[in-house]
Amino acid sequence: MRILGVDPGLGRLGWGVIDTQGLKNTATGFGCIETDAKLKEEQRIKQVFDGLIEIVQTYKPDVVSLEELFFSRNVTTAFMVGQARGVVLLVAAQHTLPVVAYNPGQVKLAVTGFGKAEKKQIGQMVKVILKLEKLPRLDDTTDALAIALTHAFTGKMGNKLGK
Amino acid sequence: MRILGVDPGLGRLGWGVIDTQGLKNTATGFGCIETDAKLKEEQRIKQVFDGLIEIVQTYKPDVVSLEELFFSRNVTTAFMVGQARGVVLLVAAQHTLPVVAYNPGQVKLAVTGFGKAEKKQIGQMVKVILKLEKLPRLDDTTDALAIALTHAFTGKMGNKLGK
Repeated sequence: MRILGVDPGLGRLGWGVIDTQGLKNTATGFGCIETDAKLKEEQRIKQVFDGLIEIVQTYKPDVVSLEELFFSRNVTTAFMVGQARGVVLLVAAQHTLPVVAYNPGQVKLAVTGFGKAEKKQIGQMVKVILKLEKLPRLDDTTDALAIALTHAFTGKMGNKLGK
Repeated sequence: MRILGVDPGLGRLGWGVIDTQGLKNTATGFGCIETDAKLKEEQRIKQVFDGLIEIVQTYKPDVVSLEELFFSRNVTTAFMVGQARGVVLLVAAQHTLPVVAYNPGQVKLAVTGFGKAEKKQIGQMVKVILKLEKLPRLDDTTDALAIALTHAFTGKMGNKLGK
């Protein structure tokens, strides 16, 4: 199974593609779509959309793994992240890809075995599990890989987004 | 000038197309894209996207008028509205339509002359200004017409979205 993990954001959208087979997980591609804050919001949204389309068409994932809405952020952040997340959902729907979502506690638990792990611990585990020489330059990319891994580890439990 | 006003939301996205010429404003089309809460979130997002594309291609507006992020709503609402708003921005960018945004106070002031007007007063003024026989069935549609009117009335001041 090929999983596309996404950590949505308008300024930085982290993404990571993982191939999972039995106990083996391989990072097939990862990166971060960065948009320029000087551009108009709608131009940035389009860059995110175009970038995602390219990723989906290049890697042809079987499923998209996302972080669930979480309540600790403020309204402005939630709004901006929501705008980018809407575009991720759209691209998934356009390619008839199922979407799964996990909350931060589930991601921490799946990747480190500890639901209250620090960001640094998650990074270390992502690096070890995926046998990366070094972590990606941006946390957003590491987070996306962690979200993809979460589905690789817990996906059999059938945590599906949507009501 | 033809203005598409949008009141974004995932469950209900209100839209209204207004033709403005001098002091005359005509409602050329309006309605509400409603999506079923029982569907998966990504399916609902795609319905919103497909609906917007149809509206833009049918009415060919010159500009899209939206409400600005506002801070009074809670995080969950901001997130859901943000997801739909991201799709509106995407459709605008894909059709190279400029996007303008107004805050609720600006909408109230433009439509009723009073920045703290009640929802009901806005509806009454929308009905009068646009010579509608009756108000649309849903508030979301009326709000979208009000947002379009706001740009018709204040657009010459060049209130553009984006930094």
